[in-house]
Order: sequence, then C-alpha cells, then structure tokens
Amino acid sequence: MPSQSKPPKASITTMTELVLPNDTNTLNNMMGGRLMHLMDIVSAICAQKHSNRIVVTASFDNISFKRPIQLGNVVTLTAKITRAFNSSMEVHVLVEAEDIPAAVKHATHSAFATFVAVDQMGRPIDVPGVTPETEEEILLYEGALRRRQLRLILAGRIKPDEAPELKSLFD
Amino acid sequence: MPSQSKPPKASITTMTELVLPNDTNTLNNMMGGRLMHLMDIVSAICAQKHSNRIVVTASFDNISFKRPIQLGNVVTLTAKITRAFNSSMEVHVLVEAEDIPAAVKHATHSAFATFVAVDQMGRPIDVPGVTPETEEEILLYEGALRRRQLRLILAGRIKPDEAPELKSLFD
Amino acid sequence: MPSQSKPPKASITTMTELVLPNDTNTLNNMMGGRLMHLMDIVSAICAQKHSNRIVVTASFDNISFKRPIQLGNVVTLTAKITRAFNSSMEVHVLVEAEDIPAAVKHATHSAFATFVAVDQMGRPIDVPGVTPETEEEILLYEGALRRRQLRLILAGRIKPDEAPELKSLFD
Amino acid sequence: MPSQSKPPKASITTMTELVLPNDTNTLNNMMGGRLMHLMDIVSAICAQKHSNRIVVTASFDNISFKRPIQLGNVVTLTAKITRAFNSSMEVHVLVEAEDIPAAVKHATHSAFATFVAVDQMGRPIDVPGVTPETEEEILLYEGALRRRQLRLILAGRIKPDEAPELKSLFD
Amino acid sequence: MPSQSKPPKASITTMTELVLPNDTNTLNNMMGGRLMHLMDIVSAICAQKHSNRIVVTASFDNISFKRPIQLGNVVTLTAKITRAFNSSMEVHVLVEAEDIPAAVKHATHSAFATFVAVDQMGRPIDVPGVTPETEEEILLYEGALRRRQLRLILAGRIKPDEAPELKSLFD
Amino acid sequence: MPSQSKPPKASITTMTELVLPNDTNTLNNMMGGRLMHLMDIVSAICAQKHSNRIVVTASFDNISFKRPIQLGNVVTLTAKITRAFNSSMEVHVLVEAEDIPAAVKHATHSAFATFVAVDQMGRPIDVPGVTPETEEEILLYEGALRRRQLRLILAGRIKPDEAPELKSLFD
Repeated sequence: MPSQSKPPKASITTMTELVLPNDTNTLNNMMGGRLMHLMDIVSAICAQKHSNRIVVTASFDNISFKRPIQLGNVVTLTAKITRAFNSSMEVHVLVEAEDIPAAVKHATHSAFATFVAVDQMGRPIDVPGVTPETEEEILLYEGALRRRQLRLILAGRIKPDEAPELKSLFD
Repeated sequence: MPSQSKPPKASITTMTELVLPNDTNTLNNMMGGRLMHLMDIVSAICAQKHSNRIVVTASFDNISFKRPIQLGNVVTLTAKITRAFNSSMEVHVLVEAEDIPAAVKHATHSAFATFVAVDQMGRPIDVPGVTPETEEEILLYEGALRRRQLRLILAGRIKPDEAPELKSLFD
Repeated sequence: MPSQSKPPKASITTMTELVLPNDTNTLNNMMGGRLMHLMDIVSAICAQKHSNRIVVTASFDNISFKRPIQLGNVVTLTAKITRAFNSSMEVHVLVEAEDIPAAVKHATHSAFATFVAVDQMGRPIDVPGVTPETEEEILLYEGALRRRQLRLILAGRIKPDEAPELKSLFD
Repeated sequence: MPSQSKPPKASITTMTELVLPNDTNTLNNMMGGRLMHLMDIVSAICAQKHSNRIVVTASFDNISFKRPIQLGNVVTLTAKITRAFNSSMEVHVLVEAEDIPAAVKHATHSAFATFVAVDQMGRPIDVPGVTPETEEEILLYEGALRRRQLRLILAGRIKPDEAPELKSLFD
Repeated sequence: MPSQSKPPKASITTMTELVLPNDTNTLNNMMGGRLMHLMDIVSAICAQKHSNRIVVTASFDNISFKRPIQLGNVVTLTAKITRAFNSSMEVHVLVEAEDIPAAVKHATHSAFATFVAVDQMGRPIDVPGVTPETEEEILLYEGALRRRQLRLILAGRIKPDEAPELKSLFD
Repeated sequence: MPSQSKPPKASITTMTELVLPNDTNTLNNMMGGRLMHLMDIVSAICAQKHSNRIVVTASFDNISFKRPIQLGNVVTLTAKITRAFNSSMEVHVLVEAEDIPAAVKHATHSAFATFVAVDQMGRPIDVPGVTPETEEEILLYEGALRRRQLRLILAGRIKPDEAPELKSLFD
C-alpha cells in the first residue's frame, strides 16, 4: 500500500441534481434505478480522488428505499471514503432530497459501495490508506471490516466461520 | 392477499440492451450504475406484471460486480418473481453479457430486488401469491424468507434474534 | 454461404421498455420515431445473433402505426429472423404494448427490416441460412422473396418485370 | 377540408444535427434507428406547421439505407409536405450528411411519411390542401396518390384491383 | 487568412427542435441551459461550414432570456456568421419559438458566439474572410469589431483605452 | 423584500459530473454548450435555495472558454449567490476540471448568471437580501451593481449615461 495515508475529507464529493420528468415513474416519484445510477457515479468519483486511479465498481451493499423523492426535488449526494483494503475502497454515500419551495429536506437514503483501483490494463493496484478524523469517521472505519465480511459471505467467497466480527452480532 | 396465486412464468420479463459509449467508463467497460438502472427497470416491470399494479422499489440486495461488460456487448436481463409477502414482492434478476461477433456469453451478475405494490394514492395494496413450479423456483421461493430477514436486520427493523432462519447459517 | 443453417429460435430477441415522458408527444402517446429507434435496435441484435457478425441496417419496410401507445405502458418488442440471402437477413419485429394496471395488452405494430453482415472493414460477408420450423416461420420464409422483390423495385434496383412473384399479386 | 390551400414552402422544415458517439454502432456509423427517430420528428413538425394542429405519425414508407453516415458528420434533414387527403398529410423527408472538414456532402436517404391531424381529444380533423408550385413539387403531388394506394394495399385495407394507378406500373 | 472570402449565406444553419418534458422546469418552461446547449451546437456547425475545419467554442456573449418557451413548442435556431478575425469567427444565433396549434410565433432570443478553427492537433488555423451582402449583414459585420473589443476587455486581455470604438459609446 | 437577509454560504451549491463520450466533440473535448447547460442547472439550484422559490433564468453573462476539458475529466461546479435586487438574484458559478489519474486540476471557467424568483403563476416575487461575509463575497457583492448596469445596457433597457458606475471604467 502506498505509504501516504489520507483523511476522508481529502476526497469527499458532492453531487447536486434536479429530478427531471424522465427520472420518475407514473406516481411522479424518482425511480430507484436512476438514483442508484447517481450513487454509483458520485462514489466512483470519490474513490478516484482518494486513489488518483481509474476505479471500477466492485459491489453495492443492500439499499433500502424508504422515502419517495419527487419530481422537481433537488437531490444532494455526498460520498466519503471509510476505509481501504489493498486495492479496494469502501465509500459511504448519503442521499438527501429537498423540496426547496416547500422548505422540506430529508436524508432519504444511504449505502456503502466498494471500488477497486486499477491500472491502464485493468489490473488491481494498491491505494493509500484512510486516516479517519471525526468520531463518525472512526465508527465508519471500524464497521468497514464487518461489512466486508458480510459481502464476502454473500458472494460465497468465505464461510460464516471465517467472519468472527460479523458472527458476534448473532450471539 | 388476492386469492389467485400465479406461477413465476406468468410475469417473467426479458430486456435486451446494447452497451453504448455513454454507458461506459474510460476502460470501455459498462458502469455499474447504468447496469443497476436497467436491473431496476426490468424487475419493476416483472413485479408490475405479477401484481397488475403500480410498484415502487423497496430495496436492492447487495450486488457484486464480478466481470466487466464491454462497449458493444449485448446485455440480456431476465427478471422472475420468487415470492410475495402481502404487498411486497421479491424479484430475482439475472444479467448475461454477450460479445456476439466473438461468440462469448457470460452470466455476469444476479441480484434480488423487492417492490411494493401501491394504489393510485401510493398506499400499499396486497398482491397475488407466487406458486413456484420448477426445482429452481422452489429453491428461490424457500430462500426468500431468509433474505427477507437479512434485509429487515440490515434496515434495523428487526433484531438478529428475530431472524431464526438466518441465524442458523452461523451455527 | 456458411454451411450451417440455423433455426429462427436460435436468435430470437426480446426487448422490454417502459414508455417515459421524453418518449411521448403532447397527447402523451409514444412518438413513432422513438418506437422505430427501438425496432431497429432489437432487430439488429437478432441479426447479430444469427450471423455472429457486426450488422448494418439496409432497409426498413413500410410501417403503419395503428394504435397509440401511452405514457407508462410497457412495450415488448420481439425480433425473429425470417430468411437470409447471401450477406443480407430479413428480420420480422412484432411490437406489443401493455397497460399493466388496466390489464390491457395489444399487438400494436409489426415490420420487416433487413440487415447486412459486415466484417471489421465494413465489407459484406455471407451469413448462415435460416431453417424455418413452425408453420408461421415457413410462411414468413416463403414471403421473404416477394418482399425482397418489392424492396428492390422501390429502391429502383430492378424493374417490375424482373419480379414475377410480386407481379402475380396484381393479376 | 379547410378552404385555404397552402404551398409546400409555407411549412418546409430543416433540422441540423451533429452525429454524437451514442448515435453510432461499433463501426462508428450512425444507427438506422436513430436516423428514423430524427426523420419522424422533422416531418411531424412540418405536418404540424401545415395544419396548425397536433399530428400523429400514421405510417413511414420503406426506407433504404444506402450510405453510412459517420461519427462527427453533420446531418441535415429537410421535410416538405407533398399532398393532403382529408385529415392526412404526406411529407417527403430528405437526409443529407456532410463531413465538413473533408468538404464531402451526400444526399444519403429520403422517405415519405404520413401524419394525421387530430384535435385535443385525438380525433382526426381536416387539414388545408397543398398547392404545389415548382415542377418537383408537382411531381411529388401527383405521385402521392400512387404511394397512398401502395400503403393501403400493404396495410391490407384495399385490394390491388382497387389501385389502378399502382397496377399500371406492372403492365 | 485563406484568400477566398465567403458570404454568410454559404454557411447559414437552421436547427428545429421540439421542446420535450426533460427540457423543462416545474413551470413547463424550457430551461435556459438546454437552450444554450442548442445555441452552441447550431452556431458551431455554422462556423464549421464557413471554415471547413473543426471548431471549438471560444466565448458566448451575454444572453438575456426574455420570453419563456413552453413544453411542446417548436424552437427554430438560425446561425449566421458575421465576421472572421484570423482563426476566430463570430456567429449570430437567432432563436424563434412557435406554439403551432395556437399559431403564435416569437423571436425569443439572440446571441453572439465566437469559435476558433483548429487543426487535428488542436492548434488555431486561419479561416476565410466574410463578405457581407445584405444591409443587415453589413451592420452585423461592422458591429463585430466593437463586440470583439468588449469581449477582450471583459476577459481582461485589453484595457478600455485600447478599445476606442467601444469607448465612443460612452461619450 | 423579505426582511431576513441571508449569507451566501446558506445556499452554496456544488455539482460534480464525469465528462462522458456524448459530452465531447471530435477532439474529445467537452462541448461548450454542454458545460453551459450544467452551469445553468447548478446556479438555478443555488438561487432556488436562497429564495425558497421557483426560479427562471434571466440572463447569462459573457462566458469565455479558456481551457479545454477532456473526456473522463471530473468537472466540479460551485455556485454562490452574490447579491439580490428585488426579485432578481446574481449567482457566480466557478468551474474546475480535474484529470484525477494525472493529478491535474484547473479552475477553467467562471460566469455570472441572473435568476428571477416567481410564484406558481410565473409572476416575479421579492427575495431575501444577501449579507456577504468574506472579503471575496464583499467584492462580488459590490461588483454586482456594475455588472447589472452592463446587462441593462446590453439589453437596451438603459442608456450608458444611466450607468455611472460602469462609465467610470472608461475614464
């Protein structure tokens, strides 16, 4: 891993979008797939900034769509790196939706995505570590290991026995 | 729940798309977010067909992006309902990518999404049950309960103790 | 022509799309041009699958737009090869539109398109023959010659006298 | 039919577009379906101008794609009304493609489309007649009847016997 | 500068577009940014035609959005070169919006853009001069020098003292 | 004007975008029109946030495109309100482009746009004042009057004599 570790604030990325007609279903709510598309782009740019590399999406954790986002809303997506493992990076993306004329703003969704940094031939390449600074960043950093174990189990690459941190949740 | 249960084949939905330049990153691979967008649309149409209702995306399970899909590839997405719970439906979506001139075809990704059927006011409404027919459909039907428990835990809506099926995986 | 003839079912292609606001005119009906765009893509993918080649659109037969397709409808396009002539292939594309919450489905349009298989330099290259299997496929196979004569007349490349099959329609 | 007949020049419509990456296939040629989409829009605007009505596409005559149009080319589409029949209008659309830095320009395609003028409820409504002025416009006006017969035969709405003008082509 | 000067009519470019849902804001009026996008494309094509070169946008003069353009309107943009200075060209673009069923047409906007002709390496290259022919073209040709001085002052590249033509406006 | 004045930081808006193939010309540089489109959206959202109103673009000041932005670059747009005049707001938008793998970042463009706040009927409505806080914000606040005079002259709505602040630049 490159020697120089970096704090999350060095690569934080904010994207602001207006919900347009083609983004919505027949109830005039933003379609989930369109939102996932934006979540992928903003978190990929964040991982690119942290690593100064081309990155490819490795996985998206389970996303729960709690509140509808409506036509004409302004959507703000904020992506922040939580931790790096060799060539892979976990990014936390937070989605907030705002009906500005009504002065209503909600944190609507959040998710974790992982990216792999690659060279020009598409081969994985190590990235700098992450130095969490705030209390929230430390919590996200610590939880990253447990989430990684869950992903590896879900992908069938390790067995539950090999995930002691995760297993402890069920005891 | 409406009395008439339906088999998965009654609502199976296939979508075929060509990977165009704007779908790809600087390595000429399809971006993950674009693929998630398509996965959401095809599985929403499948849930719509099963329920004859407007549906909204409730959640997307964790997706692992194993193989890159390239510019010019033909992507085939097949969505099939696995099980219904009151107003919610779980849909399995399988993604295959094909480089036709090279005669190479891969099953590249799969995921589970859940949708809620709603009426014109956006209120949840019950949907028909699912009658699995093939061996694979029966397996998917049975696993749906365990996946549902995992989603509820991850969403913080139940505790691990309330998910006995899932917990048994770790014993 | 490559020795190995293939049945239509080996390359049948299905595309499912949701009609979004930008696809529609001020009456909320899908614009004809948007539908022709989808018809071209699905039938090109079908011709690609039959020939395992890059293909270019050679012609589109006359299309009659009988029924309007509405915003929020699900459109299913099914493309099936009918016959091959050296490097060219005729594909039949059927369009069905569905208002799922209203449980209404119509076969709305159909058309014939022809494609030419080309190599990497854009030069025409022979493709496998087609072996029709069902009664409907045999009828489509037989009619292909007559449609080809009509296309050549309309393109000014042969004279009506050289199209005996077509001419017999007027006797 | 409204009393006031209008010349084709009163509604001639020109559209200029740049061929962008997403418009092209893997040979960097414009896809046929994208071009048909543009042909529909420009000729619909022309029919709208002639009738001062909302119009819907009724049919597109057979289109032959002779020359490839390439990425970066400038495409000029010119739509001109040829004749009106009650509520329907036939529009001729000519496509020219230009590689400007190479100073090469070709008339690449042409087609005839028909549109029906409708009121706000979608019901057909009569439109002004067409008064051809130039020699070319007179030829197009006269040929419109024969093309209309061919469309009606192809749509199965009249029999060849009822199309004497067209039949004479085969004698 | 290439010896052969050309009149504005040799490169005049017209673009016709339909205002679609995604082009509009929540008042159903076309967004300013979408219109500027079209103004840039049509005037770039005009500059390309005049110079037979690849061109890049150098500047856009101040644009005032007077009248709203509405969903379903037909927008016509007409671009005409006014004058050339070595490798740069000034283009005047006029925007008209039409509500065709209501038979209402307005000249809504106009602006001046400048483009630089470049070779394949992106280096500036001289272009033919402009020979104005009509009275309006002569006025636009003469005003071009004053507008160029204003642009250079606004870009901080010359001082007001070096712009005598412009300064005289304030005397 | 509503009594409550607000600082620029209360409505600052950041948008991050990836330059995709369809955004670029044949030199692989981002087209000026596409960038103006983004500049309009981000500054409109900023004006919406300041006023809690629907806003319409009133004008865009002259934009000079100094440096090309390339395919694959990450573009960051930051919009900040400078001053309000009754129902109109001036917004400053700064564009930065970054080639992340090459670790190169440039401030590429900046511009001033003005917006008018409107009610649901599209009528102008007063907005809160702006309280500049930093030294840079004070400078932008003070310059806003001079820029407003220039816009009014360019739009032919006042004469140079009525713009003493601007005129002094030429003395």
